Amino acid sequence: MARTGRRPGGGSGTQQAILDAARAAFTESGYDGATIRAIAGKAGVDPALVHHYFGTKEHLFVATMELPFDPTEVLPGLIAPGLDGLGERLVRMLLSIWDNMGDQNPFAALLRSAMTHERAAVMFREFASTAIFGTVMKAIDADRPELRTGMVASQVAGLVMTRYLLKLPAMVEATPDEIVAGIGPTIQRYLTEPLGLPPR
Amino acid sequence: MARTGRRPGGGSGTQQAILDAARAAFTESGYDGATIRAIAGKAGVDPALVHHYFGTKEHLFVATMELPFDPTEVLPGLIAPGLDGLGERLVRMLLSIWDNMGDQNPFAALLRSAMTHERAAVMFREFASTAIFGTVMKAIDADRPELRTGMVASQVAGLVMTRYLLKLPAMVEATPDEIVAGIGPTIQRYLTEPLGLPPR
Repeated sequence: MARTGRRPGGGSGTQQAILDAARAAFTESGYDGATIRAIAGKAGVDPALVHHYFGTKEHLFVATMELPFDPTEVLPGLIAPGLDGLGERLVRMLLSIWDNMGDQNPFAALLRSAMTHERAAVMFREFASTAIFGTVMKAIDADRPELRTGMVASQVAGLVMTRYLLKLPAMVEATPDEIVAGIGPTIQRYLTEPLGLPPR
Repeated sequence: MARTGRRPGGGSGTQQAILDAARAAFTESGYDGATIRAIAGKAGVDPALVHHYFGTKEHLFVATMELPFDPTEVLPGLIAPGLDGLGERLVRMLLSIWDNMGDQNPFAALLRSAMTHERAAVMFREFASTAIFGTVMKAIDADRPELRTGMVASQVAGLVMTRYLLKLPAMVEATPDEIVAGIGPTIQRYLTEPLGLPPR
């Protein structure tokens, strides 16, 4: 019987089939619900082949979203030198990635759809929890690491939103050094300094 | 000749006609481009009647968007007691408004469309510049008031985004007092404290 379309088993065609299946699975089942096994089943390949090409589910997600960087690789590198100055390093890294991505970058698209579609918001939350917040939270050596991580996320999200999505002139025109000087200490405070939280 | 539909000149029907015309004008021409004269023309009424029912263009916009509060009235009240503690007051007011609005609030809809449609982003920027940022900027008695206002906007926007739109668990579960303790000082620093900006 003649077959048309992609032929699983043959290099880049297989990788593309896996990516298509993964994208569909993440959309249908969310980040946590989509399993490598189910993705492999959809793509008509062995789960081992998915791992061979893409590694972990985090890496597969990053590949699916065509993100220009892999937070699971970038973050540990930022954290490695220690907590000292981590706030500034995070902001500078974020700017160096986004400032060079141009307008139609895939992370902006991901964030936009997470803001507007509940299903995409769930997927974003689940991915961010595993691949981003978990890593930051583990690095925090102070009370309330989860709340601190949430506050870091709030300032980072707002920076991205005002500089790249809403494009507020003051935030677009600010130089990276100005943003780092202003916002780096905020992130640093959330990560390491006393927050004066009320007793629980 | 028989007329159907709204009859300009008759109370609430007229007000609704003005609101419909204003909504269309803001969408077509943006916040700055839409004039009271053009809106009145669309609605088939005298411009004076628009002012009579809705006051300034800011107020008309707020009415059009069905916002549950009017930033042009709320902000001056927050600023009046002085810069001391303004960061905490801003955060507490924001939480008290949003926490009580429920999921489908109009400001969230406005923000969502500003994130996804360039035209809505322009309208949001223009309205926010006039009705929100301008008022905050005038209150700032320190260097770089525009950049400081942008940074305030970035933290406020990120708080709204993570607590109400993306719904990150840590930010949803935090009590208002915790958010005020954590984020209030950030806003206060952006408003009044030295930022350590590099020389221009």
